Amino acid sequence: MTTLSNTRTVRIEWGDCDPAGIIFYPRYFEIFDASTSALFERAMGMTKIKLLKTFNFAGYPLARTRARFVKPTRYGDDVTVETTVSFGHSSFAIEHRLSRNGETCVECSEKRVWVVRDANGRLKSHPVPDEVRAKFRG
Amino acid sequence: MTTLSNTRTVRIEWGDCDPAGIIFYPRYFEIFDASTSALFERAMGMTKIKLLKTFNFAGYPLARTRARFVKPTRYGDDVTVETTVSFGHSSFAIEHRLSRNGETCVECSEKRVWVVRDANGRLKSHPVPDEVRAKFRG
Amino acid sequence: MTTLSNTRTVRIEWGDCDPAGIIFYPRYFEIFDASTSALFERAMGMTKIKLLKTFNFAGYPLARTRARFVKPTRYGDDVTVETTVSFGHSSFAIEHRLSRNGETCVECSEKRVWVVRDANGRLKSHPVPDEVRAKFRG
Amino acid sequence: MTTLSNTRTVRIEWGDCDPAGIIFYPRYFEIFDASTSALFERAMGMTKIKLLKTFNFAGYPLARTRARFVKPTRYGDDVTVETTVSFGHSSFAIEHRLSRNGETCVECSEKRVWVVRDANGRLKSHPVPDEVRAKFRG
Repeated sequence: MTTLSNTRTVRIEWGDCDPAGIIFYPRYFEIFDASTSALFERAMGMTKIKLLKTFNFAGYPLARTRARFVKPTRYGDDVTVETTVSFGHSSFAIEHRLSRNGETCVECSEKRVWVVRDANGRLKSHPVPDEVRAKFRG
Repeated sequence: MTTLSNTRTVRIEWGDCDPAGIIFYPRYFEIFDASTSALFERAMGMTKIKLLKTFNFAGYPLARTRARFVKPTRYGDDVTVETTVSFGHSSFAIEHRLSRNGETCVECSEKRVWVVRDANGRLKSHPVPDEVRAKFRG
Repeated sequence: MTTLSNTRTVRIEWGDCDPAGIIFYPRYFEIFDASTSALFERAMGMTKIKLLKTFNFAGYPLARTRARFVKPTRYGDDVTVETTVSFGHSSFAIEHRLSRNGETCVECSEKRVWVVRDANGRLKSHPVPDEVRAKFRG
Repeated sequence: MTTLSNTRTVRIEWGDCDPAGIIFYPRYFEIFDASTSALFERAMGMTKIKLLKTFNFAGYPLARTRARFVKPTRYGDDVTVETTVSFGHSSFAIEHRLSRNGETCVECSEKRVWVVRDANGRLKSHPVPDEVRAKFRG
């Protein structure tokens, strides 16, 4: 089994929406960040807090993101987020597709970097550990 | 059956937490607001967006809230939120208890007001409709 | 005078940052959305709430956005956001450059659509009014 | 001079507001948290990130908060937040008054605890350092 993708359902809440009655778009990026964590949790079999300790790294901040907003969503909508990963050397690419009743609402592509802290506590990129890649291969 | 309470599970996410590694407390109020909506949805059998249309009102903003933070929560925690309501005339009181593995982390009491828009579009309080109260009695 | 750009200063707050101690990236999009509003406010001489009433439109939601994260920012950082617009027919392109002490931290490009509500209350795109374009020309 | 209070101005943004067109109340707590930081920054003459290093502590999380919402605020409102502190032993009380054109919109009382990390990295309360208290006396 290959765990290179994960699907979850998210409820859009009243507090996610703006005076136009539709989601305030920065909330999508909160949803996508949690969706990336959910994919790692499923593949690695541990939550992010344990993952950071186990592999002694500082996270996977974004190098870039790109999103296309096709249809607006509203509070009360239960949306599906399908998240897929493909690994590079010290970075990985994530694709999120957020849909409602099968219709695409948002598409998002991220590039994230695996980072560790150097001796001075500064963040620097680091190769994604083989053991992590292996877990995604299943 | 009386639907005066509702319980749901919420995952605390990385993005909910601050540099101390614990939840940034305003996120609790986002969780509590969604928990109030979830209780109404369960009792009324419709999402908030339909509820607002069906009863032609503008929401139930807070008059006051009070919270006690007993234990911090962290990303990866799955917390339980138990929400209970008791109705007044044009307002209602909500109690939220947020716990992790049975231990109380936060207790919150809210007073919320049922509001409609007057002829000038301004928000004003209005008695909670009998049909709404009746649904909670089950 | 042409008001096609605006610059403002934003403080990165503790609550904007995540357990890695750096800003949680969805907060950048909140900053950029407010920066777009600030540019319109400066050019039009009115806040967004008045702008929506005056021109009877429903907002300028995003069609797409793209951001590149060059350097992380931290709580206590005072960052500068320079925002530039160029108009299309019923849409406009926005560029944000967020910098700290002159060094670029984030670059973001947005495409936004001018929307009105149709007879059924649904959002649909609409040409940007000439009076709005004219104000930006100064 | 005694720096036991601080006043700052905050713009309520479009993205702070909900489908009723008024501020989504958890945003007030984000504003209040930043207002507490601003008071400390003014009294101590350093940002929070430097404060944490200088005094080797982990922050001042809330033990409890209580807020009364008197008048709603809307996007485009420039509100004034007046923040006052009074110190206890290992905790302090904060009062925030948020007003618009002199009229109170929200009143909030907080109790916060000065925390350090114990040998196991867990947060525990600690007396507020005398040097900190002294700075507030001016």
